This record gives sequence, C-alpha cells and structure tokens, in this order.
Amino acid sequence: MKTEHKTPVSLETLTALCKRRGFIFQSSEIYNGLNGFWDFGPLGTELKNNLRDAWWQDMVRNPPLGPDGEMIDIVGLDSSIIQNPKVWAASGHLGGFNDPMADCRESKSRYRADHLMVYVPESGEGTAFAFLEGEPSVAEKRIKKKAKSDPSAYKVVPYNELDPALIPTVWGPDAQEPGTLTEPRQFNLMFKTFIGAMAGEGDENTAYLRPETAQGIFINYKNVVDTMRVKLPFGIGQIGKSFRNEVTPRNFIFRSREFEQMELEWFCHPDEATKWYDFWVQTRLDWWESLGVDMRNLRRRDHDEDELAHYSTACADVEYQYGFTAPGFGELEGIAHRGNYDLSQHQEASGTKLEYFDQETNEKFIPHVIEPSSGLSRGVLVLLNEAYTEEFVPKGNTEGGPLLAEPGTRPPEGYESRVVLKFAPRLAPIKVAIFPLLKNREELVNKAKDLYADLRKTWPVFYDQTGAIGRRYRRQDEIGTPYCVTVDFDSLEDDTVTIRDRDSMEQHRIPITELRSWLQSKLV
Amino acid sequence: MKTEHKTPVSLETLTALCKRRGFIFQSSEIYNGLNGFWDFGPLGTELKNNLRDAWWQDMVRNPPLGPDGEMIDIVGLDSSIIQNPKVWAASGHLGGFNDPMADCRESKSRYRADHLMVYVPESGEGTAFAFLEGEPSVAEKRIKKKAKSDPSAYKVVPYNELDPALIPTVWGPDAQEPGTLTEPRQFNLMFKTFIGAMAGEGDENTAYLRPETAQGIFINYKNVVDTMRVKLPFGIGQIGKSFRNEVTPRNFIFRSREFEQMELEWFCHPDEATKWYDFWVQTRLDWWESLGVDMRNLRRRDHDEDELAHYSTACADVEYQYGFTAPGFGELEGIAHRGNYDLSQHQEASGTKLEYFDQETNEKFIPHVIEPSSGLSRGVLVLLNEAYTEEFVPKGNTEGGPLLAEPGTRPPEGYESRVVLKFAPRLAPIKVAIFPLLKNREELVNKAKDLYADLRKTWPVFYDQTGAIGRRYRRQDEIGTPYCVTVDFDSLEDDTVTIRDRDSMEQHRIPITELRSWLQSKLV
Repeated sequence: MKTEHKTPVSLETLTALCKRRGFIFQSSEIYNGLNGFWDFGPLGTELKNNLRDAWWQDMVRNPPLGPDGEMIDIVGLDSSIIQNPKVWAASGHLGGFNDPMADCRESKSRYRADHLMVYVPESGEGTAFAFLEGEPSVAEKRIKKKAKSDPSAYKVVPYNELDPALIPTVWGPDAQEPGTLTEPRQFNLMFKTFIGAMAGEGDENTAYLRPETAQGIFINYKNVVDTMRVKLPFGIGQIGKSFRNEVTPRNFIFRSREFEQMELEWFCHPDEATKWYDFWVQTRLDWWESLGVDMRNLRRRDHDEDELAHYSTACADVEYQYGFTAPGFGELEGIAHRGNYDLSQHQEASGTKLEYFDQETNEKFIPHVIEPSSGLSRGVLVLLNEAYTEEFVPKGNTEGGPLLAEPGTRPPEGYESRVVLKFAPRLAPIKVAIFPLLKNREELVNKAKDLYADLRKTWPVFYDQTGAIGRRYRRQDEIGTPYCVTVDFDSLEDDTVTIRDRDSMEQHRIPITELRSWLQSKLV
Repeated sequence: MKTEHKTPVSLETLTALCKRRGFIFQSSEIYNGLNGFWDFGPLGTELKNNLRDAWWQDMVRNPPLGPDGEMIDIVGLDSSIIQNPKVWAASGHLGGFNDPMADCRESKSRYRADHLMVYVPESGEGTAFAFLEGEPSVAEKRIKKKAKSDPSAYKVVPYNELDPALIPTVWGPDAQEPGTLTEPRQFNLMFKTFIGAMAGEGDENTAYLRPETAQGIFINYKNVVDTMRVKLPFGIGQIGKSFRNEVTPRNFIFRSREFEQMELEWFCHPDEATKWYDFWVQTRLDWWESLGVDMRNLRRRDHDEDELAHYSTACADVEYQYGFTAPGFGELEGIAHRGNYDLSQHQEASGTKLEYFDQETNEKFIPHVIEPSSGLSRGVLVLLNEAYTEEFVPKGNTEGGPLLAEPGTRPPEGYESRVVLKFAPRLAPIKVAIFPLLKNREELVNKAKDLYADLRKTWPVFYDQTGAIGRRYRRQDEIGTPYCVTVDFDSLEDDTVTIRDRDSMEQHRIPITELRSWLQSKLV
C-alpha cells in the first residue's frame, strides 16, 4: 500500500538533522572544515555500512536470477586507491577527465564553466551578465540597474558555448565590473600525489588517487578469470573510496571530493550485451525499490545519443528526486553499456592479452561490459531524503495514528509534530532501543540492562534511561530506530515487555522469551 | 586441546598461494605492478571483510565487559582520508612523522637509514661495509674478499648511529666502491596532494592522505560527545585506509604504502587510565586468540622507556611470529597510553574547548586516551600465516586422520600431501561448497543447484561440479572452506547429503531439511 507522496525535505533541514544526531559532520570541523569533505558520525557510519552490506549481499553474494531465470555469479574485489599511473593513461582519465573552468581575475572565484550561464543581449551589443545555474537573480538585478533594461531582452547562453569574442563583455557573478572572466580552460579532476623512493615532485613519481573504482576491476579481470573458475557471463563487484578534485563541491554529500562507490562490471558475450544491459537497468531500479525508495521519487533517464561516449551504445541513469533538485531529479546511479572499450584499452597499453576463450564454442573475443555504477555516499543521501518525514501525532499519544505533515508547518489543535526517519529495518542504524521505565528503580534498570546486554550480541542496540518515555520515543524516531522496548513494573512480575512500533506508534506486550525471534522476523 | 606447534610458512609460499587462489594480487600487475600496493582478490576481499566485521562486532557493537564486569559503550566513526592539513600540524605528523633515509649516489638506491647496518672495523681503520638488516652475507663476502679479513674483526653499528666522520669509508650494499652513501636525512612519510579550486601545487592548497585513522577520531571527539549522549569512559572505533610513503615497502602486505587500520580511542578519566590500559592490552590479546590464533605465536612486548613518546606513559605491542620473522616476532597491533596529548594539541591548535565536564563530580578535564591500534591488512596476513597448514593424509582417504607435516617435506609411504587453510569458520571466505557427485547427471546437478541457490541467501557458497570429488575437496581445503556438501544418488532417494569436515576430513550424512540449522550452529 503506497502512502501519500511526501514533499522532499530541504538540504538545510537534512544537514542540520545529520549534524545534530550524529549522522554526518563537516570534516575537520574544529579547523573550520575542508570544502568537499565530510565525516560520517556514529549513526551515519552504521547507515552507510548497512547500505554497503545490502549491496554486497544482493549483488555479489546472492545476486538476482538472470533474464532467463538462471543463477548468475559475481565475485568481489578490493583494489588499491593508488594504482600504476599507466592505468589512467589507458583508461583515458589522464587525457580526458576534465571539467571546463573559468576564473574571475577580480574576485579570484573559480567556476565550472558548464555551470555558468550568461544573459546575452538579443541585440548582440552591450554588456552580458553571468550567473550560476539556478541563481539568476543577481544578474537580473544588474540588468535592470546597470543596463536599464529587462531580462526578457536577453537570451541565456552557457558560458561554455559563448562566442569567445563576447567574453570581454561578460560581467562575472561576483565581479564589480565586466570583463574579468577568463576563457574556459580544462582542469583534470584527478588528485595527484608522489610515490616513494625518489619522492621528488617529478613526473616519474607522479601517481593519482583513483577517480572511480571501475578501472581496478578491469586491470584485475585476467587475474580473476585465471584464479576463480568463473565462466562468461559473470560479474566483478567492488565497493570503495574514490576521489575527484571537484571545482565546486556542493549539495552536502551529493558532490564531494572524497566519496564511496559501489560498482559492478558485468562481462558477457558481445551478442548478449543488449540483453544484459536491459536486465541490469531494471534490476538496479528494482533494488532501490526493495530498500524502500518510493518509485515516484526514482526515474530512469536514457542518455541521448550525443551524451554517449564514442565507444558506448547505451547508458541510463537512475535518478532521484532530491530535496535540492525537486521537482527535478539528480543522478544516483548510472548503468553503462561500455562495449569492449576498457579491456581493449588495457590490452593495448599493457601488452597483456585480455581475450576470453570460450571452450565450448572455440571462440576467442574481448568480452563486452555492462557497468551498473552506484554512489554509496549518494545512496546514503537518498536514504536520508527518503526516510525523513514530518508528522502530526495526537497529543498525549492516546488514540489515532500519525498524519503526514507538510515540512515546516504547524500542527492543528490537539496534535503535536514529530520528525521520524522511516528507514527500512534492514538499513536502520540502530535496530532496537531499550528503556527502563524509571532510571531510579534499580530492578528496572538491571532488567533493562540485562536485555541490552543480550540483544546487542546480535543487533546494534541503544540503551536510554533518561527523560520521560515519550521523549525517549521521539529521540529514537528522529534517528529511525524501528522498535523501542520498555521494561516496566509488569515486566518484573510476568517477564513481558512493551514493544513500540516507530511508524504506527502502536504498542503491544510480548514475553521476553519471544522477543528475539520476534525481532529476527522483523529485522530483515 | 592445543595441537602441535606448526612451523611458520615462508612468505614465498604464502604469496604464491595468495595469487594462485585469488586472495591477493600485486596491484596493477598487468602494468608490472606498483611497489608497495596490493589488490585483494575475491577470496582476500571476503577474508578481509570478515576480519573487519569481527572487529566491528566485538569492539564497537558488542564490546567485552570492562575490568569491573560492567558494560562499556563504544560508537563507530568513518572520517575522511583527506583532512584539513592543520590536523597534521597539530598532531605532530607534519613536523615529526619522518623516517631517516640514506641514498647511494652510485646505484641510486634509497635505504631506511635505521634498517641499514654497518660492519665497522674494530680497529677503527679501513673500509666499513653496509648491509640491510637481516642480510649480512654480501657484506661478509666483501670483508673476506676486499679487506682480506674476517667479520669477527668487525662490530655491527646501525648506520643511523655511525660517527659521521666514518661515512666516507662505508661501502654501500649495492655499490661498486666505498664512499657513495649520503648522510641520513629525514623524509616525511605522508603522501602529499593538492586540493581544489586553485589547484596549483602551492603550499596553500597542499593536503595529505592520512597516515593513521586515529586523528580523525580526535577531531570528531567533541561532535560525538555533543550528539551521542555518551558519558566517560567510552570509546570511538574506526576502520579505514591509511597511507604511508614507506621508503622500503616490504614483506608482502606487512609493510605496504596503502593499508587498512582498525583503531579504537578509549577516553577515560586520568585517574583510571592505567586500569584501562591494562584492560585493553589483555582484551586485545584475548581477541586475537578468540579468532583462533595460537597463543604460542603471539606475544606481548612492553616498550622500553626510551621507546616511548614524551607524552606517553606506557605502550605495548601485540607481536606475531610471522614466517619472515620466525623465530622472532613482528608487530601486529599497538596499545598506547597517550595521556591527553592528542586532545590537548587539537584544543590548542583549533581554539575549540575539548574538555569533558563531569556532571556528577563537577569536574572539568581533558580525558586521557588508551589507543588499541591494529592493522586490518596486517591482521589478514596473520590469519593467512596462522591458517596455512601442510598435512599428510592417508592415500585413498580411507582411514586415519591427517598428520601435521613439515612444510615442503614429502609424505611417507601410503600418504599424500595436502595444503589446508584452517580459518576459523567465522573468518573463512567461503563457508560451504556444494558438489553434485557427477556433472553429467541432470537430476544431481539440479538438486545441488537448488541447494546452492538456497544456501547462498545466507552464506558465501561455492558451487563446483568439475573433477573428482577428492580433487574438489582439495581445492576447497586450499582456500579454507570449512564444509563441503555433496549431492549423490542417495540424496535423490532420501533427501540427505554428505557433509565433509575440512579439518578432520570426516564425513557424515544429514537430511537436507536439517542442513541450515546444522550450519548455523557451526558457522559462528
């Protein structure tokens, strides 16, 4: 049963909650942070680990049945972040992994040239006004004030595509006068470092932090085939950190400079690549749905032909309606049909044969590859967006269930607000909270602690004895704990406890002896 | 019951097995590798993940009872690899995280000066001969041939401590003549990179890859205290990659440039720090034993006073008898009493108060810290060393159990050799292998595949239908799979299967309906 479609939460609200409740902190915060880097706090770490483990379980250890109902096989890998720099020459990242940038000579700001837009006079004469995509207001004010004109007399052109002859007429977003922006130039997104013995900062010692985990799979393809008794088709999955020196990191953990990926390379016969491409696009959409993501917030976007790399015949994004993109969508995952490009490039550059020999057909060929490439950090952002819910609940919590509320609105008479993170139980950072009804009654505290000691052998459990039970429930709602268990005076008599459900807010009693198996059945 | 004490396996044997069976590959191998970097193959990844999860479960989610039998609380964290460079200035790594190096002007080799030893003539006159620690033979040959003398007329001095006046008399290990080694100079072990917008390689954009995960914990200490309702004493645990630009990476994954750590910072009242230090040293030794590590291969080594940092009052290493150190030991984990050094440094450098206010005693102080810091990559090496076993087994496998064999020796009459990795079931990369007795009997294959499809929902399972059953057992022994399940003709009749135990090699039949619960009870 689908519920009402929630209004997406704003990034400001989500970021504040994440900091306040220990999900995600600005990195190096006590040193005023570092732009584009984030640290996962205790709850964010558990949430991220749960998403990581769900992908590993559902993609590597127990992948779904294939398009013809057959079992398929996928193995895992964990390659290093720093690889031989020849990897990046062969993959094309050293030559082509660039963003166009433009600098403002006056304000010293740097812009992604493809995110910079310009109001150009329709007449072709006079000053043009630049603005950051989505933020036209400063430029519009200037048009009115400085050019004594109206934005409707201007057309919008990406800075990237502007006639270079017009660049001296452009007024930069942060500038005090026109003509301070440089022409766009290319900027490589790989972080550079220097390795080892000679340690000088010379070319021969230069290496790079990987900008994707995928190449680590391609360069180990032969080792995996030689050692793991795998036969085509099969997949290699990897989860790990990647680094991109983004010109303008933004939108919380959506575009950060250090992030985690979950990537699968699916190797298959060229004739079967299209079948597998279709399979993986659908499978990945289904997977996000299986984690509780509302399909109204997900969409498949097939790339236009002119978006595709020259070697690719198809690519689709799984997009999500983030709070900061709504009503539009932003990327969550890409599924690319990469042909045999990567293996061919590495075969040529390394001189190592990467062909597959099919013993049954006596055929030798370079496998084609379908690549479902997902962001783990970005996935966490989706889970947080998706889970965040504001509700009105009857005061005193006596009767009636919670009602979905418009974020930021005030409750009607007789109701109060609550914030609840509706994570699927499988993904919730804390599975169960244990409360003694009162903290100053030793027998309640002892019994609750015994329960805590027992349950935390199996699940992440939170123990809380401070404040009224209602407040303790709210604290757990706000971090998405599916079940709260209270030890009260009846528990001392009959060995039962109260279980309270996060979403329905309903409570029921259960014998302690049955608690484990009850939780086991719910926490999957 | 303790078994015979195994002879440690050589690094060459272990490295070869790891490559052949998909545990660990040289990084970027098709590009001739990259010195100091390794990639984990499918089985190595599962093994490493299992060790990672065991630490997280036993240290963070469900830590042991404290020294007084009380429950203790630890939360997790996952901070970024690139942090604000001020972190490393405050921690002392920017100024002091150096290794002394010496170069050979002739051979261009670079040496860790503290790993370079010198035979110096007792007479104080004539040529001195340098060698790498543990490899004196080249120097000894030269003493005999070039100096027409005997090594016994020389004393061994670390190059680091040599009178600089004697340096011109030293003959380097790879040199063709004496006098080519430079004086030792300091080399910072942190990898450098450049961040973001300005992207030039100037000081203001310089950042470092973390050389340890610990500082990420200290700089988030305040955020954790403010958000997680923790009270002293408590711990923060973190697992993640660290990077050290080692001058001479060596010994497989023992000393690599990219590696993973499992670090705990335990925050406590200064008066209790000694109690907790003792507790954590013992707890960490116990933990390795709980994973099946033979205590004869582990030892505690307390640091001498002159090894301690100025702020530290105690430090102990957990050392392991690796194949390449035997009969000596090498570091696996360090447990350090760090006092309040780190928090004090960050408080001073950041201007953020990091004092703890104890509401019960009204006391305000900077907590003291006990740090059990363990290597995850190094832990994998220990597990592999510990698991590797060569045995003689009766031919035909008809009667009698396996006998421990001296590595590399030939079996007596009537026996054959096997290599078996005796991982604890909890850590084994593959938990169960499923075999149909014959691959050309569809009903056997189908039944085995049904079992495979069912069991892999829960555990990492390997399906193998190729070759004689005995050979399939040996293949699983070599990767440490605790149980092999065979579907034979009886299975078709009575729905039972054969389970074969890796260590005892004994087999017994069990109804398929009982298989899951049997495995559940064994795989903990």
